[in-house]
Amino acid sequence: MADLSTCPPLTRDSVVQALDLIKPLIHKTPAAKPVLRLWFKCENFQRVGAFKARGAFHAIERLKLEPGWLENGGREKGVATHSSGNHAQALALAAKENGIPAHIVMPSITIPSKVAATKGYGANVIFSTLTDRLTVAEKLVAETGARLVPPYDHPDIILGQGTMGIELQEQVTGLDAIIAPCSGGGMLSGIALSCEGTGIKVFGGEPEFEGADDAKRGMETGQRITYVNSTSIADGLRSYLGVHPWSVLYERKLVHGMYAVTEEQIKSAMKLILERMKLVVEPSAAVPLAVVLYDEDFRNMVEQQAGEEGWDLGIILSGGNVSTDGLATLFAN
Amino acid sequence: MADLSTCPPLTRDSVVQALDLIKPLIHKTPAAKPVLRLWFKCENFQRVGAFKARGAFHAIERLKLEPGWLENGGREKGVATHSSGNHAQALALAAKENGIPAHIVMPSITIPSKVAATKGYGANVIFSTLTDRLTVAEKLVAETGARLVPPYDHPDIILGQGTMGIELQEQVTGLDAIIAPCSGGGMLSGIALSCEGTGIKVFGGEPEFEGADDAKRGMETGQRITYVNSTSIADGLRSYLGVHPWSVLYERKLVHGMYAVTEEQIKSAMKLILERMKLVVEPSAAVPLAVVLYDEDFRNMVEQQAGEEGWDLGIILSGGNVSTDGLATLFAN
Repeated sequence: MADLSTCPPLTRDSVVQALDLIKPLIHKTPAAKPVLRLWFKCENFQRVGAFKARGAFHAIERLKLEPGWLENGGREKGVATHSSGNHAQALALAAKENGIPAHIVMPSITIPSKVAATKGYGANVIFSTLTDRLTVAEKLVAETGARLVPPYDHPDIILGQGTMGIELQEQVTGLDAIIAPCSGGGMLSGIALSCEGTGIKVFGGEPEFEGADDAKRGMETGQRITYVNSTSIADGLRSYLGVHPWSVLYERKLVHGMYAVTEEQIKSAMKLILERMKLVVEPSAAVPLAVVLYDEDFRNMVEQQAGEEGWDLGIILSGGNVSTDGLATLFAN
Repeated sequence: MADLSTCPPLTRDSVVQALDLIKPLIHKTPAAKPVLRLWFKCENFQRVGAFKARGAFHAIERLKLEPGWLENGGREKGVATHSSGNHAQALALAAKENGIPAHIVMPSITIPSKVAATKGYGANVIFSTLTDRLTVAEKLVAETGARLVPPYDHPDIILGQGTMGIELQEQVTGLDAIIAPCSGGGMLSGIALSCEGTGIKVFGGEPEFEGADDAKRGMETGQRITYVNSTSIADGLRSYLGVHPWSVLYERKLVHGMYAVTEEQIKSAMKLILERMKLVVEPSAAVPLAVVLYDEDFRNMVEQQAGEEGWDLGIILSGGNVSTDGLATLFAN
């Protein structure tokens, strides 16, 4: 170090001169945080407690409009699906309200409360193993003539889920962007379609745990990933992106970025929603807020693109189907 | 039994005759459930997460209107209270927004998150033991000149809490009754006043655990109970009824019935609110729904008074301040 007698006095002016001296050598680090005004779309308050009601009701309304469906005994033959989650209950409810039978294939390890809820809507529940559920469902369809209503990889489902995007645009004027969870991609691609041509940017959030961020990884290599086996706490986000969602999101470039968060970040965002917003959400629904709060890439991107004016950002709280047992396990002391 | 050959044939007519035979000997058991349309007042969405913000803001607005308060340095001397609960945060917030100091005496065993929240609103937190908090608060008031804002036993607090009753009457036309939790009775007596002369009946709910149902027991004997030491999970309902609330509720007969529920019933109602309504409420807030669902005396009373037409019943969800740690403990598997 320089001789003490040569040093400038310890004053503010001296610090300003010190900055002049080193300015070309250092980074000016950011002081502004991204400016975001958050708008939460509360699909946890949707019928059956999750957005899945939109796709299921839309699929059945579309069936009723299909020429010949009614005449060929469609109403008696009913509908079928394979799901251990919110889609099972949503299809069961939509079928019940239309007075048509629903056959739901569920893995035999499905937690009893979800089986009970699905049966509670009057559905015929058939158990399968984890791996043969599609086979069991297809056999069932062949035997009963029921129409298969897949959980996400179908235009009728995608368009149904997309309706929340239209609603949000009606509810929030001047919306700049929307971020939603992504699993099979039915909801995210529906929202992306709802924003097409509007200038509203669409982002997706996934858990990174055990490769559940297949959509993000797939888009990075340009190759859709077709196998995921993750036990993320975000139990609604363990599927891989379907063909139709891939086509909308990647091929048609209707999604502007995918982000992945850790299990701890999901839990932390969920804790915030429960404790401060007083809303019950399932872990999957906390993923977008986790991206917004903790993903530095996302935050830097917003800061650059939104500038000082900031963004009005829609955050999809996709569902609230978590039991008190589940909460106790998640947050066990 | 009679000889088989003498028995009537097994037909519907024979059952009708059997009923004629035993009618004077048996009770006709009820088939109709009480008919209730429930309206939930979501004070868990109130500022600081509980109704206590109403009383605290009202108390400070009233202070500002008090002749001489400002001139005598009231704004500099500030306000003080003793509370380990929602009142502490509410007063801290109301004081902060008015730019006046708040001195809050909290028992040193208060859970850290509540201390942090109160300090977060800028309050000066002073610790005490569980038993000497009133003494500490009074000493503090003597030293600082701060005005004591008690948690419930004061007209300004009672009138502030009562504002939710006026709001609910504006929000639900044709309301027949309201049921609210009761601890010190500030909220219940405020609501009772808000309903005076309207014909709307007012009911209170308490935990029965370890004598926390002091208001109910006191009203049965006509003597206010002035000691409660309960560890009910409904941690906001462990105080005993104050002098002013007793005067409104009992002496002026503005409450139409008090009901007490068990810890299991509170937990069960809370589970329902979390799982099906997707709302985070603290255990105290679940007490009125527990009465409505599980208290046979309450249900019989409604059935008799409301008849087939039923009642539109307001249910006060008083607050949502429970941590994920707290939820995990309450619902531990």
